[in-house]
Amino acid sequence: MSGKVYLVGAGPGSADLLTVRAARLIEQADVILHDALVCQEVLDLAPQARKILVGKRAGQVSTDQGFINRLLVASAKDGSIVVRLKGGDPMVFGRAHEEILACQKAGLDIEIVPGITTAVAAAAQIGTSLTRRGVSRSLAFVTPTIAKGSQNDTSWADVAVASQTCAIYMGAGQADSVRDTLMTRGLRADLPVVLVHDVGRPNAGHIAGHLNELPALAQNLGTGPAILLIGDVFADLSSHAAIDQLNSVRHA
Amino acid sequence: MSGKVYLVGAGPGSADLLTVRAARLIEQADVILHDALVCQEVLDLAPQARKILVGKRAGQVSTDQGFINRLLVASAKDGSIVVRLKGGDPMVFGRAHEEILACQKAGLDIEIVPGITTAVAAAAQIGTSLTRRGVSRSLAFVTPTIAKGSQNDTSWADVAVASQTCAIYMGAGQADSVRDTLMTRGLRADLPVVLVHDVGRPNAGHIAGHLNELPALAQNLGTGPAILLIGDVFADLSSHAAIDQLNSVRHA
Repeated sequence: MSGKVYLVGAGPGSADLLTVRAARLIEQADVILHDALVCQEVLDLAPQARKILVGKRAGQVSTDQGFINRLLVASAKDGSIVVRLKGGDPMVFGRAHEEILACQKAGLDIEIVPGITTAVAAAAQIGTSLTRRGVSRSLAFVTPTIAKGSQNDTSWADVAVASQTCAIYMGAGQADSVRDTLMTRGLRADLPVVLVHDVGRPNAGHIAGHLNELPALAQNLGTGPAILLIGDVFADLSSHAAIDQLNSVRHA
Repeated sequence: MSGKVYLVGAGPGSADLLTVRAARLIEQADVILHDALVCQEVLDLAPQARKILVGKRAGQVSTDQGFINRLLVASAKDGSIVVRLKGGDPMVFGRAHEEILACQKAGLDIEIVPGITTAVAAAAQIGTSLTRRGVSRSLAFVTPTIAKGSQNDTSWADVAVASQTCAIYMGAGQADSVRDTLMTRGLRADLPVVLVHDVGRPNAGHIAGHLNELPALAQNLGTGPAILLIGDVFADLSSHAAIDQLNSVRHA
């Protein structure tokens, strides 16, 4: 008897930003394989399940993808309901392809349940539309993070430059090179940027400014995950930030 | 006494693809202002609420945005809980900015609750990662639909060409011009495309093929909403589609 694998987006953090379908599946799961970014609040929905952390976080030792694939297949083979929980949405920078393929090769039934991807939750948090009429009708999601062993590839920057609004995933830790790459390609020094951190969590917040200030802004981030948003739709946030800075200088 | 306005993403269709937070708010709402794309199943969560359709659909007469703004403010002024429900996510091609501004100007408290945007739900439905390692690390959401009175602007196509995966919102009805614009800018005739229709609904489905065939593929769509996905990550779907077509020709 084979079980079933659900590849489920856990959204940005808090349990009430799961989809209703995801929350139900988590409550029914026998086994949950989850990333490091999945919050405790979400895992607490499944007191009955065996939970296995298979996460990868930048700068830490990763769990080998082949090992995750084998664990996924082995967990479902005995008839268990297996929920593979990924932060955000599994189909957006989630390495879903490898796991879908592994399940299909093993003859397992697999279903994908979408999640709120971080950029979209960040926009809700800061109250700013990513595609404002007259300002932006294109939105790009890119990542400058390079897989081990691959060539240094800056094609992500072409997309960031072409699009009117851009969300850079896993880029906050490389603020210097992101700024340099984008400014070398002609993006304006005063283009508004926002670092939105700990999206969907109790300690959520954001730091706004301009592209040339990006490394300085990033130094004020804590250790939580952060997404970098770039574009003129964020002009109100970055001009408020500038006024706040001016006031704090005046009052110093 | 002023009420509160919640700008809520209704996701792609079925009620269990709402976030848990969105579902709770809908159940508590006194007034719901909703788009035409919001499904009955979602509205049925709120038997208690006064529901007002303020939708716009391509080709139909739209409700004036100023009228929606005034209705939103007027509905909340008497202390009501107002849920403004938009298909997908409000911050992605959802005209959220105008409504946020109207509420803020009226001194109303407004909170934004994200929703699953159509491209992400479509990826789950067709089982294909939008950003497969080694194939795509950039994802763009664009729309070729032009607001009335604005110049013919094809900057969306620059982004579509630069990104390795592209989701075109509100573009399925303009298949001829979308194909011509993208091929003129150098996208390959044999680039995989998928039209995913009625995402998240009982009659969901997809039609796969290649960019040069796009107008023919679009003719097989019904009247439901559809999103157009383009990129090499969809190669498996379009090659299966080609084999299916070949088989149906052989068997004809």
